[in-house]
Amino acid sequence: MARQQCVSSRVAARSQALSVEASLAAPDRAAVAVDVLARARSVVAPALEATLTRLSPELADSVAEHLSGGGKHVRAGLVLVSAAACGADERSAIDGAIAIELVHNFSLVHDDIIDSDEERRHRPTMWSSHGISHAIIAGDALATVAFQALLDPPTPERARAAALLADATQSMISGQALDMAFERRNTVTLSECMEMVVGKTGALLMCATQLGAVLGGAGEATIDALGAFGHHLGIAFQAIDDVLGIWGDPSVTGKPVGSDLRRHKMTLPICIAQAAGVELGSRWRTGDLVSDEDVAVATATLESCGARRSTLELGERHLGEALAALARVPLLREPRDELVAIADYVVARDR
Amino acid sequence: MARQQCVSSRVAARSQALSVEASLAAPDRAAVAVDVLARARSVVAPALEATLTRLSPELADSVAEHLSGGGKHVRAGLVLVSAAACGADERSAIDGAIAIELVHNFSLVHDDIIDSDEERRHRPTMWSSHGISHAIIAGDALATVAFQALLDPPTPERARAAALLADATQSMISGQALDMAFERRNTVTLSECMEMVVGKTGALLMCATQLGAVLGGAGEATIDALGAFGHHLGIAFQAIDDVLGIWGDPSVTGKPVGSDLRRHKMTLPICIAQAAGVELGSRWRTGDLVSDEDVAVATATLESCGARRSTLELGERHLGEALAALARVPLLREPRDELVAIADYVVARDR
Repeated sequence: MARQQCVSSRVAARSQALSVEASLAAPDRAAVAVDVLARARSVVAPALEATLTRLSPELADSVAEHLSGGGKHVRAGLVLVSAAACGADERSAIDGAIAIELVHNFSLVHDDIIDSDEERRHRPTMWSSHGISHAIIAGDALATVAFQALLDPPTPERARAAALLADATQSMISGQALDMAFERRNTVTLSECMEMVVGKTGALLMCATQLGAVLGGAGEATIDALGAFGHHLGIAFQAIDDVLGIWGDPSVTGKPVGSDLRRHKMTLPICIAQAAGVELGSRWRTGDLVSDEDVAVATATLESCGARRSTLELGERHLGEALAALARVPLLREPRDELVAIADYVVARDR
Repeated sequence: MARQQCVSSRVAARSQALSVEASLAAPDRAAVAVDVLARARSVVAPALEATLTRLSPELADSVAEHLSGGGKHVRAGLVLVSAAACGADERSAIDGAIAIELVHNFSLVHDDIIDSDEERRHRPTMWSSHGISHAIIAGDALATVAFQALLDPPTPERARAAALLADATQSMISGQALDMAFERRNTVTLSECMEMVVGKTGALLMCATQLGAVLGGAGEATIDALGAFGHHLGIAFQAIDDVLGIWGDPSVTGKPVGSDLRRHKMTLPICIAQAAGVELGSRWRTGDLVSDEDVAVATATLESCGARRSTLELGERHLGEALAALARVPLLREPRDELVAIADYVVARDR
């Protein structure tokens, strides 16, 4: 309690009035985000490697190989910068950052089996290199080591952080379960789709910012506000991702044109179009949308009904909510600007 | 600290001098074990069901169906009775008991995929009823809800318990990884096999007794002694299980005659025979041991070289070590006798 008060007064003394507008111009924000994520990576990559000594030697090599495949370390960056925004040293939150990255990567390893994806980041996925059985237990080991790292030692802050991580992991799994259930359906309401997005993407981003606040010793109001920032950022992120999954440039996204359409994935643009009564045709309904021409027609239908624009607007709205959440509590100015920069980078990525 | 001292003095005052010999006669012990496990089940089954509200509705039904398949609740019983042996109310350890059962069942769901087992407890396994993708995330949800249950609320005792559970889960996964690696090999040393057994079976039984002690507010010496009891009991349990996997009566074990031999599993009797230079023949080596006659010959070879007897002796030795560990610290007499009864039941089961 004493520590929380101390942190709060430090923050109050050093922070400045925060408006929803970021203090930095857009080009500066992009450069800041790139710097922050590079810094997060430089701190987190060696810590992740050290953690792998807890894994069976039968699994450690393949897991290290998977982790070395890259990734932007957005979640780790959010943990570290959130802690700094609460007036704490980023180092106090390193184990939170690696726990979040480990849970994220556990979900990738298992999702790749479920989606039969043979490539990720232009490299073979765990199951396609090492078999499904190996990938199942390697994913299990990744999820478990996250809790080992976070609970060593099991201090009150780390216990609270681990409880939040367990809740977020369960929400993420629920989102994945919904996603799988949706692929067997032909219509999904927008609110069902949002429930899936909030679980599958929002929960872990919300948890990242909460973990930074908890491990940084912040009070409840700050934990809540940073959590709300992560939650809305997660939805904004997914909205952009869903637009890219249909309209993205394959040379940038690394996925074939219209891959989400061919897979019959119930993404935000699809559910927005369905809510407006738009029909995507019988081939889409039966999951037989395979030819480039079919894909082009469905894409044009979605474009002309405004589904692309509405999805981007939904993303913008949640980005606005995310920034508004940051304005609700006193935070240190420099890391707060870095959070805004990460948010901007995340929703602008690859376009 | 004050609580630990208080519990210790309560125990010291009420416990009686403990010898390695149990205070109850063998037939009484069997009846006590059956009673204790029925009591554990009556407490744990509704608590488990209540916990499933944390799961996605898309997963909860299949998980409830899996959990209703039975199981002896040995691990849950060990948690509750260990807490009682430390002078605590068994109710203080209920969330530890359900967390252990959830992790155990997570491992069963994923192991059934890995082993391609279509039946467990005479019912279809999760993957054979609901598909591999569903079973992967249902297992993930089971593992995650264990940590949610244990960390709600995240008190210091529960945080310590969750850290122990994470370590035990990782050891269990490492044991499973070794087991999978061994199936691709033709020789495994006894010490390698023991490493696998200690991880795959011993870790969770050790964790069960530790969790009871931790949640029951015991001191370090008692946590260690009860942990050692669980560890050795796990090895004794596996030794009996390995004997039953080769010599067990199919009508009792529910597995075909010689199933472990047909599967080329590197169990304790096999590794003991190999350490003595015994050859099981080229068909066993190549995993082509399919005919009943082949299995009968290999079984006779193992019997005549003393592998069955040596495995049972190894089990007896570890059962002795388990009981000796109980004698090292003051424990309440009645629950201590119940622990001895569970140990006896576990190593005598199904014979």
